[in-house]
Amino acid sequence: MPIKPGTLTAKGQETRRRIVAAAAQVMFENGVASTTVEDVRVRAGVSNSQVYHYFDDKTALVRAVIEYQTDAVIEPQEELFARLDTMAGLRQWRDVVVARQRELDCRGGCPIAALTTQYAEHDEAARLQLAHSFARWSAGLRAGLAQMHANGVLRPEADPEALALSLLASLQGGLLMTQLNRDTAPLEVALDSTLAYLESLTVR
Amino acid sequence: MPIKPGTLTAKGQETRRRIVAAAAQVMFENGVASTTVEDVRVRAGVSNSQVYHYFDDKTALVRAVIEYQTDAVIEPQEELFARLDTMAGLRQWRDVVVARQRELDCRGGCPIAALTTQYAEHDEAARLQLAHSFARWSAGLRAGLAQMHANGVLRPEADPEALALSLLASLQGGLLMTQLNRDTAPLEVALDSTLAYLESLTVR
Repeated sequence: MPIKPGTLTAKGQETRRRIVAAAAQVMFENGVASTTVEDVRVRAGVSNSQVYHYFDDKTALVRAVIEYQTDAVIEPQEELFARLDTMAGLRQWRDVVVARQRELDCRGGCPIAALTTQYAEHDEAARLQLAHSFARWSAGLRAGLAQMHANGVLRPEADPEALALSLLASLQGGLLMTQLNRDTAPLEVALDSTLAYLESLTVR
Repeated sequence: MPIKPGTLTAKGQETRRRIVAAAAQVMFENGVASTTVEDVRVRAGVSNSQVYHYFDDKTALVRAVIEYQTDAVIEPQEELFARLDTMAGLRQWRDVVVARQRELDCRGGCPIAALTTQYAEHDEAARLQLAHSFARWSAGLRAGLAQMHANGVLRPEADPEALALSLLASLQGGLLMTQLNRDTAPLEVALDSTLAYLESLTVR
């Protein structure tokens, strides 16, 4: 029976973290289906017994990878989320998201989206976990918009929850086309449309 | 050397079509990486020599599947594309897209997006082919919007190309969250935001 993360020593947590990071990397490069526990073990540079000390099987590894990638995608945005209560803050978030893709040469797309299309139909618990990842992302975007709404900057009829979800959808759809075209333009166009819509709902 | 589709007899075309449909189905269910040529052969109910008569290898099969899924996704929308030159036509397209997901119990997501996240980073020709699939889809949406613009229904500053791309991005991002939540609400919210933005750009 693998040990729960909460009960690990500092060294144990570090080993577990190393295995999950290796799993995330291999699965992002080669896809979930093509990745074996052995691939992860080799990439992490640990023994077989170490892997199975922390994870029952590949399913357990994938679920840990979903958590890892969700944190990796959302945590760097959290400081920006706090400033999404102004159009300037929203545009700054947009610029950071676009710049990140430019840094990556528009390669790879969103790791959470990749896990969704590769895995959500094969593992019900993973599907719910991924739904929760997007809900967390959307909630991060919503907080600032709700503030704008409460402040009276957004008109009463504006719906912060729907706007947050629309921003996230534009980002995801834009990312897909940005990945395919190796060009940030689709992502920029999609986000800018949603931001222009959002601005049209502000009180002038 | 496999035979090109254009030079096949009617019976040959039917066999090739059957193999590609089987490949599309197996890859959609199990993922591209997990699918072998043998899986496709069994699903199509053909002999090994028949598969290799039409396709060099799995790469050739995946490329044929991209073409097949692009047609399968876009062709049923083509009749609707012709009516995207009014807000009523746009809402009808939106309703058909949403109803389709309801029919599918929101399972599976977009096959073209799935092929993108599973395969675009592994085969440069496939990436370009998938970029072309989205360009074709976007062009279908753009035609009606360009008509609305030419008619003066959309304001001069509106950009039909950017709006078409934004609609497609909303659709893709919305689909991803609709798949994860087994609920059409995210797709509806995302499309409705873009349609509301589009409507805000019409001359009243």
